[in-house]
Amino acid sequence: MENFLFYNPTKIIFGKGTIKNITREIKRYGKKPLFVYGSGSIKKTGLYDKIVKVLNENTIDFIEHSGVKSNPRLKHTKEGIKKARENNCDLILAVGGGSVIDEGKTIAAGVLYDGDVWDFFTGKGNIKKALPLLTVLTLAATGSEMNAGCVITKEETQQKFSAHSPHLFPKTSILDPENTMSVSKEYTAYGVIDALSHVFEGYFSTKTDTAFITDEICEGICRTLIKSMVILQQEPLNYDARANIMWSATLALNSLQKLGYKNFEFINHAIEHSLSAIYDIPHGAGLSIIIPGYLKFNAQKGNFKRIARFGKNVLNIKGADEKIIAKETIEKLKTWFSQIGAPTTLSEVNIPEKDIPKIAEHSMELINLWGMSYAKRSVEEILKLSK
Amino acid sequence: MENFLFYNPTKIIFGKGTIKNITREIKRYGKKPLFVYGSGSIKKTGLYDKIVKVLNENTIDFIEHSGVKSNPRLKHTKEGIKKARENNCDLILAVGGGSVIDEGKTIAAGVLYDGDVWDFFTGKGNIKKALPLLTVLTLAATGSEMNAGCVITKEETQQKFSAHSPHLFPKTSILDPENTMSVSKEYTAYGVIDALSHVFEGYFSTKTDTAFITDEICEGICRTLIKSMVILQQEPLNYDARANIMWSATLALNSLQKLGYKNFEFINHAIEHSLSAIYDIPHGAGLSIIIPGYLKFNAQKGNFKRIARFGKNVLNIKGADEKIIAKETIEKLKTWFSQIGAPTTLSEVNIPEKDIPKIAEHSMELINLWGMSYAKRSVEEILKLSK
Repeated sequence: MENFLFYNPTKIIFGKGTIKNITREIKRYGKKPLFVYGSGSIKKTGLYDKIVKVLNENTIDFIEHSGVKSNPRLKHTKEGIKKARENNCDLILAVGGGSVIDEGKTIAAGVLYDGDVWDFFTGKGNIKKALPLLTVLTLAATGSEMNAGCVITKEETQQKFSAHSPHLFPKTSILDPENTMSVSKEYTAYGVIDALSHVFEGYFSTKTDTAFITDEICEGICRTLIKSMVILQQEPLNYDARANIMWSATLALNSLQKLGYKNFEFINHAIEHSLSAIYDIPHGAGLSIIIPGYLKFNAQKGNFKRIARFGKNVLNIKGADEKIIAKETIEKLKTWFSQIGAPTTLSEVNIPEKDIPKIAEHSMELINLWGMSYAKRSVEEILKLSK
Repeated sequence: MENFLFYNPTKIIFGKGTIKNITREIKRYGKKPLFVYGSGSIKKTGLYDKIVKVLNENTIDFIEHSGVKSNPRLKHTKEGIKKARENNCDLILAVGGGSVIDEGKTIAAGVLYDGDVWDFFTGKGNIKKALPLLTVLTLAATGSEMNAGCVITKEETQQKFSAHSPHLFPKTSILDPENTMSVSKEYTAYGVIDALSHVFEGYFSTKTDTAFITDEICEGICRTLIKSMVILQQEPLNYDARANIMWSATLALNSLQKLGYKNFEFINHAIEHSLSAIYDIPHGAGLSIIIPGYLKFNAQKGNFKRIARFGKNVLNIKGADEKIIAKETIEKLKTWFSQIGAPTTLSEVNIPEKDIPKIAEHSMELINLWGMSYAKRSVEEILKLSK
């Protein structure tokens, strides 16, 4: 088991009706929140009204910053920073999915930074402070509600980069599974695949088998995500399935899923970020395309033992030959991704094979920035196995 | 899945050689630690010298408070409070197992409290602040290194009570599995049983089966503890087994193990605290006696489903009849406790059957204080099944 550091101070308030805690949490950390949200789905579901009502009742002044897109944009983020400064906002309230929270994090750090906020994403600047951030999660997927990272896309250069700092941990995240009830079947599936992928990155790239407890946690998260998604296929409003997906997705990227592993590559994400930056497809859709190709690439290279282990322990595949089990595991996973409505090939989302060199080239920027040892040739191979 | 709140800000520095971080952590939180430790095992292992050396090299002044016993005593704790006050200590450095950390926590809170520190344990006083606490763990068992509770024994009244407050979270805990290498086979087993018991309390008392992910985490922790203990039986110095036990024991009582459960009884502990308070036996030994009786009591009452589930998922027991599986589970667990050197009956530790009413009477105090709905008659039944 490798040495590790674990620190995660985010307070999670989980369950039905927990939105009522929002004013207490706001008052604990500031006076005037910048209320960050997306394109209006929280208005359709009534969550927006609920929050505004409770803020008004408690005479909490706030400034709205709406219109955050999935794969949130640098330009829009900078508008948020400007708005927060002009209005003297002293905390950020992000209500939405991972994109909204990531933009909220970037604004929280950007407000207190004199330089260009993009510096944090290219490694030119370090986050040394940030405004307090509260989140209300409406989509189970990215884990951003309980971690210290965020991802922003710079439109002009099609760069989808990430920043990290302990200052980015939300102070409090309110996770009410009922706020995910209105998420479509398709986006619920993308969220589950995103959460699975966060576990996969460490689980399949570790070079040792000695972190027994972390393997157990990883497999437990995956079994729960799959089991709950199967329930939702029949009963989209099943509360317990929604709740288990929500908490599992949070645990899938709050660091517990990689403690004690040797090596932690984020290669599926490095490649996928290029797909969603260039073609603006949903992150989960991009991942469901890349993951089977990535696993095939590994199996071909002889790294099939952990794939077989996953197949046995999570997908209940029987057999004695690990190579065969690994092959079946990849097929079964890919088939399941299709069944729940996610694309599993580049062609399904109209990305032509001829673009592969361009995507690989693009991916190398992030691979280098994140310090991974993947050659462009290997990325092209993974993409070819995903075509 | 029930609503929950999760908050755990303790920073964990885990692995070989991590003691070197101690001065940086001390300097972050204060100037003059009260260095709390036990009866001298850290002197035998060389850990004491290592810490003193690094403190001296960094000219960190410190005051020693040694002699903490297992089942730590109120009187000794009060001496620590006095010493910390007289010497203007501004943080606590607890180096040892759960007892040392618990006494450290109590001192941390007691120093800043005008009243009698025992008030925190009887519910007469609330902990509103505490000195910062750093821990260096030398025994995997109680989970105190990453939670907000502590247990102290008042000798005169034989009361072994607990206190809880978010102010009691250690700021930083250093977990180096090598510091547990010298722990005897017997105490390693007690530690594993203590950790298992922390999982059991929630896992077997929840009234619902809807927290899938928490069930997975619980079962994963238990499988890891058992698997690692089996390795240690053959190779007591196996680093990875020690490491997995250490991190699993921490996870077994940092709240993750009960999130979303309906009902969380701590009945094994309520009864065991009476045993170790009256007879001064090791906590893990008391638990290995009570747990089989508690499980038999549950099975007899018809609550055998979750016991059977545990048997199937953790102990790999096959079969179709849940009642039979539950029975086999209890027997297998009890046999295993014996195999690893723990007592499984009251008579083994020379507690006579005639004492059962007295022990039950004594347990009722804690049962009432913790707000559990157990009648004295039920406690007596559990004790009779443990005789």
